[in-house]
Amino acid sequence: MDEFMQAALEEARRGRAQGGIPIGSVIVHQGRIIGRGHNRRVQQGSVILHGEMDAFENAGRQPAAVYREAVLYTTLSPCPMCSGAILLYGIPRVVIGENLSFMGEEALLRSRGVAVEVLQAPECIELMREFVAECPALWHEDIGED
Amino acid sequence: MDEFMQAALEEARRGRAQGGIPIGSVIVHQGRIIGRGHNRRVQQGSVILHGEMDAFENAGRQPAAVYREAVLYTTLSPCPMCSGAILLYGIPRVVIGENLSFMGEEALLRSRGVAVEVLQAPECIELMREFVAECPALWHEDIGED
Repeated sequence: MDEFMQAALEEARRGRAQGGIPIGSVIVHQGRIIGRGHNRRVQQGSVILHGEMDAFENAGRQPAAVYREAVLYTTLSPCPMCSGAILLYGIPRVVIGENLSFMGEEALLRSRGVAVEVLQAPECIELMREFVAECPALWHEDIGED
Repeated sequence: MDEFMQAALEEARRGRAQGGIPIGSVIVHQGRIIGRGHNRRVQQGSVILHGEMDAFENAGRQPAAVYREAVLYTTLSPCPMCSGAILLYGIPRVVIGENLSFMGEEALLRSRGVAVEVLQAPECIELMREFVAECPALWHEDIGED
């Protein structure tokens, strides 16, 4: 696991320590983290601040040229909303911690030309497994399921 | 134009009056508006609060059963991010003010079973035409273009 997925994982763990959903993300441009975040459903009552969205928001308003050279790291396969944000801003590459707990819109991303890499990192898998076992209702709410 | 698209249009105009991007949205459940919003890029420096996202956020945490009976009204064809949010939460029907200024992910929504209706409302078209002519750089930033 490289330093950027490690940073995304730290964000996920920070979210869990706050009583939230343990999914984290960082956006990297030219080898530097320009935005980082974690899911804020519990902490802020937010239905849109998934980890990836929080990272986009914290990166702030960036020129299109920056997004087009950026890499998004996320501990979990990105849901339709976060995948849509990746497409909106033209992020060319996404590195995913794992997709065993949840399979997001990887096929859609690839079909639009995004390079998608899945690490299946044991630390990411374990963090989500523990969370889903402890808080199934909260998890299902976050992915729009009953 | 029914009362709900009228409410979305009022949100769009409110955003423009604040110096922002004139796109508004409301989410309706059982004939009642449960969330309303407008684009907040300028007002809050937000890169994720498009009108539809703002409406989702203002509706707050809702049970899946509510989203599955809801209708989302938006003055402009929804971008990939907002379309992704519609898919995440399983919104079954989307009413769009116009898609001449911007064509969003209507085909993707339809391919996933969402009922999409486009009004081509002159008030929505005119509001966007004036805005894009006045603020082209801001508009292009909002849709991730140079």
